[in-house]
Amino acid sequence: MKVYLDYGATSPVKPEIKKAIRPFLDSSFGNPSSIHSYGQEAREAVDEARKKVTTLLNCTQEEIVFTSGGTEADNLAIKGLIDAFNYKSKTQNPKSKKPHIITTQIEHHAVLKTCQYLEETNQVEVTYLKPSHEGLISTNQVNKEIKENTVLVSIMYVNNEVGTIQPIREIGKMIEKTNGERSTVNNQRIYFHTDAVQAVEYLPMDVDFLHVDLLTISGHKIGTPKGIGALFIRKNTPIKKIIFGGEQEMNLRAGTENVSGIVSLGKATQILGKEKLEIRSQRIKKLRDYFIDRILKEIPDVELNGSYKKRSPNNVNFYFKYIEGESILLNLDLKGIAASSGSACASQSLEPSHVLKAIYNDSERAHGSIRFTLGKETTKEEINYAIKNLKEIVKKLRAISPLKK
Amino acid sequence: MKVYLDYGATSPVKPEIKKAIRPFLDSSFGNPSSIHSYGQEAREAVDEARKKVTTLLNCTQEEIVFTSGGTEADNLAIKGLIDAFNYKSKTQNPKSKKPHIITTQIEHHAVLKTCQYLEETNQVEVTYLKPSHEGLISTNQVNKEIKENTVLVSIMYVNNEVGTIQPIREIGKMIEKTNGERSTVNNQRIYFHTDAVQAVEYLPMDVDFLHVDLLTISGHKIGTPKGIGALFIRKNTPIKKIIFGGEQEMNLRAGTENVSGIVSLGKATQILGKEKLEIRSQRIKKLRDYFIDRILKEIPDVELNGSYKKRSPNNVNFYFKYIEGESILLNLDLKGIAASSGSACASQSLEPSHVLKAIYNDSERAHGSIRFTLGKETTKEEINYAIKNLKEIVKKLRAISPLKK
Repeated sequence: MKVYLDYGATSPVKPEIKKAIRPFLDSSFGNPSSIHSYGQEAREAVDEARKKVTTLLNCTQEEIVFTSGGTEADNLAIKGLIDAFNYKSKTQNPKSKKPHIITTQIEHHAVLKTCQYLEETNQVEVTYLKPSHEGLISTNQVNKEIKENTVLVSIMYVNNEVGTIQPIREIGKMIEKTNGERSTVNNQRIYFHTDAVQAVEYLPMDVDFLHVDLLTISGHKIGTPKGIGALFIRKNTPIKKIIFGGEQEMNLRAGTENVSGIVSLGKATQILGKEKLEIRSQRIKKLRDYFIDRILKEIPDVELNGSYKKRSPNNVNFYFKYIEGESILLNLDLKGIAASSGSACASQSLEPSHVLKAIYNDSERAHGSIRFTLGKETTKEEINYAIKNLKEIVKKLRAISPLKK
Repeated sequence: MKVYLDYGATSPVKPEIKKAIRPFLDSSFGNPSSIHSYGQEAREAVDEARKKVTTLLNCTQEEIVFTSGGTEADNLAIKGLIDAFNYKSKTQNPKSKKPHIITTQIEHHAVLKTCQYLEETNQVEVTYLKPSHEGLISTNQVNKEIKENTVLVSIMYVNNEVGTIQPIREIGKMIEKTNGERSTVNNQRIYFHTDAVQAVEYLPMDVDFLHVDLLTISGHKIGTPKGIGALFIRKNTPIKKIIFGGEQEMNLRAGTENVSGIVSLGKATQILGKEKLEIRSQRIKKLRDYFIDRILKEIPDVELNGSYKKRSPNNVNFYFKYIEGESILLNLDLKGIAASSGSACASQSLEPSHVLKAIYNDSERAHGSIRFTLGKETTKEEINYAIKNLKEIVKKLRAISPLKK
């Protein structure tokens, strides 16, 4: 039996999406920038896909920029905004203070490393908020760190490792209020970015409801091939492009459009829009809770990482005491079960999860934890198979563990 | 009849490539960074594709970084090198001179706009070489501009609009010689980048033969779907990443790998390697020359833009006096013939071709020129059809042209 429980790393391409992109790998191969009919056909497909994305996010077409993925979108949001800001302030007032970013210790590396680069190169100052013991950031915590030179708050919607849902809407409303009070003194607005890569399938994505200015999505987590993502950029948000060249994507992202990728992302958002979010979320949450309850009951010395209540409907993350996460993973893999330790994106570094370290300050936990992420095709039968095998594997590994008393 | 003569803008996906990527849009959907079998299968596919690219370029696997396309690769080469250089020099000597780049006025915008951005933000100084009346840059011209603080020369292999082939190998050898002489005085090397996007199919791509340190290729010009490219980075060339996040691609390009794109680029380079370059080039050159000769003979007041001798085997670019290029294009399109005025990437700006302006300093020519780019599937029958229609269209448009005496 093959059981894929790593939807947080990537997801199978949905059949409807495979079908939707087929023409663009075939006779409809034009470059959207060409003025002939091949080009116009591709241009229309790109426009159509953009429209579909705007329906899910409740924004206009001019507010969507397609990128090569979530990582590039995060980079464009953060570097692009800071670049625009530094560019403007240097021209207007060479002695103006460095801009200030507020983010968290548990962001995806696409946000964290970008902030660190800007910090190292002396372009910004950054505050990294520490999460609570449940992996949560509070609105009040953000509020307290806002300074005169704060220009950007970047907080992820759903943590990719432990699945905690941050109070994006509340933070967005607080920032909006702060901006309202500020505008009388000076006209420096604070912009609010959220990396929503892990939220698209199971949480509300309306950018007005969320009160965000910048929002990142990625295709391959919701059933597209890899290599496509998008950034929502609210009208009048200052952004300078980070990849220079042609004037594609409202002159915010140079390079020939990845037409089949863009079409796939349009289709993916359309599919999500056709179903009721509540129904999709409830189905997967029931499976998740069944999984969590049985593991916590049937395996001793196990803890759930992150929050139980404020948790993405598809995320499960267990700390199995006394054993190595990687050994569990390899044993699961032998049984055909795919899971992960932390995030796939960080797997090439040997560092233990920066998320678990930030939340628990406990490297043993960081090494002994396993993430399961459920998806559209996950069944109860698959969960039962995973539970059965996990019980056997944990028992076996603990029997030979030097850590177990 | 449908005749596609815009291979310089993009090319149809080759059937072998369509077949090669199919599994990666299907059951082989893993994230290459995942340690389970789905991930490992994807990882192997990426490694295998990288190996294929190295065979065409004659380099090692560690020297290839996959990007979202030619534009991103150009940005990584130029911004990445300058960033690495400025980073180092700031740490070692805060008062060191700004680095100097030599490039040309006729580069693709991916190179030009990147240089302009670095110039505007006061990070570099740039010399833009003016091409000859044939659109050529000479080794001597480059040599004369080299200064103490020159760190990068970026010159395209084949111009995307007029098809001129620059003497990359000779420039590379000259730079190598200069570096040899320099090394005794200081250890600042000059690095040599070439945007080879338009050269891959018809010219030698051996990076040692060419004596280059950085070389850009793009997939969709050689039969892959859009959204994939690669940068060759010779060992020990200092590069800082421009997209931050995970440690993918030897820690030089963050973001989940575009697996199907990478596989397609591997396959595309493998296909090219299997055929003899000389045979492929000669076939297309014969067609090109037949096209050029008949048009110059059979239509009055036509000139060939660029060089006749140092010209890419697949490029034709005519200046039809007294008429608008765009009118010709639209009329060709009505007859099912796809061509372009200048480059597709620049079509969204209303500016006439910066390449023709730089070579001829004649805006009428820039507005009255048409590029035809031939490809693997182009036949003599198609060329005949294009000639027949071009003759009729030019005659018709000239009859109503206010410019014609």
